[in-house]
Amino acid sequence: MTGDGDTRNRPVSVTDDCLVNGQWAAHVPVGDRGLLYGDGLFETIAFHGGVSHLWPLHMRRLADGCRRLSIERPDVKLLADECAQLVDGPGRAIVRITITRGSGGRAYFPPARAAPNRILMRRRWPDGLDRQRACGLAMITSSIHLYPREPQGLKHLNRLEQVLMARECEQQSADEALALDHSGAIVEALTGNIVIVRSGRLIAPGPHPAAVAGVGLQWLRERAGQALQERPFRQHELQTADSLWVINSVAGLRPVATLDGRVLPLSEVLSEWQQAWLHDNEIVG
Amino acid sequence: MTGDGDTRNRPVSVTDDCLVNGQWAAHVPVGDRGLLYGDGLFETIAFHGGVSHLWPLHMRRLADGCRRLSIERPDVKLLADECAQLVDGPGRAIVRITITRGSGGRAYFPPARAAPNRILMRRRWPDGLDRQRACGLAMITSSIHLYPREPQGLKHLNRLEQVLMARECEQQSADEALALDHSGAIVEALTGNIVIVRSGRLIAPGPHPAAVAGVGLQWLRERAGQALQERPFRQHELQTADSLWVINSVAGLRPVATLDGRVLPLSEVLSEWQQAWLHDNEIVG
Repeated sequence: MTGDGDTRNRPVSVTDDCLVNGQWAAHVPVGDRGLLYGDGLFETIAFHGGVSHLWPLHMRRLADGCRRLSIERPDVKLLADECAQLVDGPGRAIVRITITRGSGGRAYFPPARAAPNRILMRRRWPDGLDRQRACGLAMITSSIHLYPREPQGLKHLNRLEQVLMARECEQQSADEALALDHSGAIVEALTGNIVIVRSGRLIAPGPHPAAVAGVGLQWLRERAGQALQERPFRQHELQTADSLWVINSVAGLRPVATLDGRVLPLSEVLSEWQQAWLHDNEIVG
Repeated sequence: MTGDGDTRNRPVSVTDDCLVNGQWAAHVPVGDRGLLYGDGLFETIAFHGGVSHLWPLHMRRLADGCRRLSIERPDVKLLADECAQLVDGPGRAIVRITITRGSGGRAYFPPARAAPNRILMRRRWPDGLDRQRACGLAMITSSIHLYPREPQGLKHLNRLEQVLMARECEQQSADEALALDHSGAIVEALTGNIVIVRSGRLIAPGPHPAAVAGVGLQWLRERAGQALQERPFRQHELQTADSLWVINSVAGLRPVATLDGRVLPLSEVLSEWQQAWLHDNEIVG
């Protein structure tokens, strides 16, 4: 973990890795609607040398989410300043930004004028990411189907299905899970969107209304242009795929080494796209 | 609001209406997985004269939920004692019990051994309940479809769809919303389960896999026996319904006065069932 920084001049506090509404804090009010109802959104953002190359895409999704949930949108400059307080080292770091509607209201009914809570947490860099990028992921097909829930595409706080999928992975010693809908269409992976490689071409399933609108995938969409086809893709079509990748904004592109125990070949175009990822999103200066 | 009690002997604290893990507190740790992922459950429990008649049904659902989420189940005696600290008056009161998985883990992956957080909050008695019981609810059909998400039936913390439905109600000056699935089958109401009255007989739609397994409905199921039929019920069949009720464990049975502006008659059997509710669940001693 890098980016711990110099805490000597910070106010005395129980934490040096969380900011709640701009204050070093380790707690949130018990009436927070994010806790009570999942009434909020989050972004998990990678920094390299203090820079997040995908920052504009994260901010765009967060603003879209706030607009659709009628949560007051946080000031982007303020968020950037607070991230800089958490990420002051030269290496790589992760900040999770959580925006909730705040407290108040009458059960599910939100208050007319809410004061959102802004929670920034420095997170540990995931273990084994470099190995997964090189050697691939052990993926299972989840037994949990994802449905096109409202609000679609957002990175909201209602993630209990993902917790259950993660538990399935642990029970089967897998790194990742593939989520389908009830009709057998591919939705997404547990920790990112899916990219399928077939005859050297890239296919993204969807955009599926049950999937998160991933920032990593959005980068690929903009970078690949016509080289990325998006269309519904069904489980049985995976038989014709050369290889399978998972993409998210922190890990970039990771190949799937095995799917339900079946070995998938690593595509020849993988390293080319991983190089593009590193160039665009991780190399500083 | 009753049940405020004598706070003179309580420890100095910022709150006298919340207990977090047995301590008077107004905050929860920022790393709580209930906040970060909706990884937890809740029960909203009515007390009359300090007694919750439906307590065993709430505790049964909570235990079932903890088992299915692999969250350590809180001690029922401890919960009862803590509720008694919050509800010490002779009138009516509500306590919301929230059980989260606690902190830790690696993103969606839960920790191997988590220490759950136990959050009890005294809540305001809903305004206008007596009027709604007598005069009925203005209900709209929600534009938001509910799908049979995992984990089915539980009162979990992933309630963003309900927040959106509540917002629809406010925008249309309605009290309640009827939720359908994508095929037009009736799922539930915003704040409870649905009961349909047809030719003097009661029908509960489902049990639908997208609906919460309501404690109020469970009371009716046990009380009505063969007089309650449960079967899938589609929106277009509502044309043949005499009247429509919403049932939950706090409000009991409330009739629907209007559905999307159409006036529904109040059923003759309503007062009989409301009397049964009062007798079983609200009359003390």
